[in-house]
Amino acid sequence: MIKIAVDATGGDFGSAPVLAGVRGALKADADLFVNLYCDKNSHRDASLNSVFPRSLRSRIDLHLCSESVEMDEKPIQALRNKSSSSMAKAIQSIKDNSNDAMLSSGNTAALVGFGLQLLGTIEGVSRPAICTALPSSNGRTWFLDMGANLEPTAEQMLANARMGACQCRLFDGIQSPRVGVLNVGSEMMKGTRKEQVLAAELIKEPNMNFVGFAEGADLFSGAFDLVVCDGFAGNVALKTAEGVAQLLSKELKSTLSSHWAARLCYLLLRHDLRDLRRRMDPSRYNGAALLGLNGLVVKSHGAIKADGFQNALLLTADMVRLGALPYLKQELDLSAADALPG
Amino acid sequence: MIKIAVDATGGDFGSAPVLAGVRGALKADADLFVNLYCDKNSHRDASLNSVFPRSLRSRIDLHLCSESVEMDEKPIQALRNKSSSSMAKAIQSIKDNSNDAMLSSGNTAALVGFGLQLLGTIEGVSRPAICTALPSSNGRTWFLDMGANLEPTAEQMLANARMGACQCRLFDGIQSPRVGVLNVGSEMMKGTRKEQVLAAELIKEPNMNFVGFAEGADLFSGAFDLVVCDGFAGNVALKTAEGVAQLLSKELKSTLSSHWAARLCYLLLRHDLRDLRRRMDPSRYNGAALLGLNGLVVKSHGAIKADGFQNALLLTADMVRLGALPYLKQELDLSAADALPG
Repeated sequence: MIKIAVDATGGDFGSAPVLAGVRGALKADADLFVNLYCDKNSHRDASLNSVFPRSLRSRIDLHLCSESVEMDEKPIQALRNKSSSSMAKAIQSIKDNSNDAMLSSGNTAALVGFGLQLLGTIEGVSRPAICTALPSSNGRTWFLDMGANLEPTAEQMLANARMGACQCRLFDGIQSPRVGVLNVGSEMMKGTRKEQVLAAELIKEPNMNFVGFAEGADLFSGAFDLVVCDGFAGNVALKTAEGVAQLLSKELKSTLSSHWAARLCYLLLRHDLRDLRRRMDPSRYNGAALLGLNGLVVKSHGAIKADGFQNALLLTADMVRLGALPYLKQELDLSAADALPG
Repeated sequence: MIKIAVDATGGDFGSAPVLAGVRGALKADADLFVNLYCDKNSHRDASLNSVFPRSLRSRIDLHLCSESVEMDEKPIQALRNKSSSSMAKAIQSIKDNSNDAMLSSGNTAALVGFGLQLLGTIEGVSRPAICTALPSSNGRTWFLDMGANLEPTAEQMLANARMGACQCRLFDGIQSPRVGVLNVGSEMMKGTRKEQVLAAELIKEPNMNFVGFAEGADLFSGAFDLVVCDGFAGNVALKTAEGVAQLLSKELKSTLSSHWAARLCYLLLRHDLRDLRRRMDPSRYNGAALLGLNGLVVKSHGAIKADGFQNALLLTADMVRLGALPYLKQELDLSAADALPG
């Protein structure tokens, strides 16, 4: 049985999509057990009974906490004052080995902060990075960091490249992923920031398949299996991508309802369009691992619906199943040994 | 007659789309005169006669230069060695008042460098910023900097906000544009980089309508008229947006040709889809002004086709017509005077 701690409070839409997502994941994965950490001020046992059918209730346990971290709370204040929050308790439970992994859609900065405070990092990593996969025309591209470390050093970007490469190998079976460093020009000689050049120099190490600099469009071009960047630009890129996708989807929808022939086409094509939407749906790619923490912590998008949260929970269970954390530890240990002089 | 210097060499697809774009713009704007700066090694007078019908030839003049700046050339080397290039000559011609503005689809960093070297900046601006407008659901959002200044100071971001506000007023008639600073969280209290917070503090000045931090998705949400950010993240955001748009357009195209009903729908909807594509087409938004230089310099996307280059040229002519440069000088002068103590 895979045990996941879920932080039920937080997220932009409250706990309803979280609970519905947990229900969906429990139905889809019979090997899953969920320990739900809730703020007692917003939850009662009764609400669980109304959400979860009797058949699932043996695989879910409720842990009432005295408080929760707010979405707009300063992380430093949360770390200082909210050690009894559902987020902190859920993370602590991995450290205590009560759970195999933890999932939250709450305040990202607080999640990173509590992760560092309660779990620390694995050997060879000084700061965690948020990692996810994005759809491309011929598969997917792994991408980190999406906002855990806004101004990483070149060494931290190297560690991130090593961790991202582990995800490529583990999830996609790509033994020697094509790695790029996000930059403003794809040519090595274009004007750029110092950190990107230094990181590229480090990542060119013998056991890394460094292809060169990647531009924003390469996150979706399929030319790279892994793109590494600082957390600021990574977060901007991810949210920009969401914004464009939303705008285009809205415009397409309005095109397909503008006159009777368009509405007819929409009817004829509804299955194809649903497939397309499903392939490109951000909720399908929901669930970003905080790689480098000494424990499996996964972040769900804050503004996500039930199916998105369900996907993140199933992904979290898969990471446990695939042994993502022990694999990461082993690989980073090897890299550290390689880096030792003669 | 509006005189524009066009750098015909450079761009990812060579000079063919540039020449075709110039022809289109001359046809569309009877008040336009183009001075074309070409590398003599790749152009001959003869080629102009084959591209431009006799009726347009009285409004175009060819200036053969001895060399051109390569797309992958280091800007510092270009500045040192290529003062006779088509790019440098075209910029110099604005300084000499032979032309009202200059347009190039060449090496961005070299363009910024030559602009600074040959024209300098206007009062109140220490570094130029690349500015464009992006489509949103209810209009468009002006956005800068897209890569001229990768790590601006807070003061430079304030100057950029002032210049961007001029574009909103001049082009869209928005007297008090809603201004945002791009950041990783929309709440003022989320973890962020120091420069963004400092810039936000400065931009909150009395005559600015500072709304708050913007996230990547806000570039397309319509919640802001103007978003200011550093050139690194700005470039990443723009290219990410292009990548997503390309991927979605490709996937939609493949959906619409997957079976006979889909192909029928494509036929039924071809006009609507063309409209949609036209509304969202990056080439429609092509042409980004290098604001802050003491001369009108506009950058066209490097990987653009003829219609995109034409749009950039018509935009450049509009900037001259609207008096963008004198307006910018006047407004930045006023801001500088406001900032003087008592």
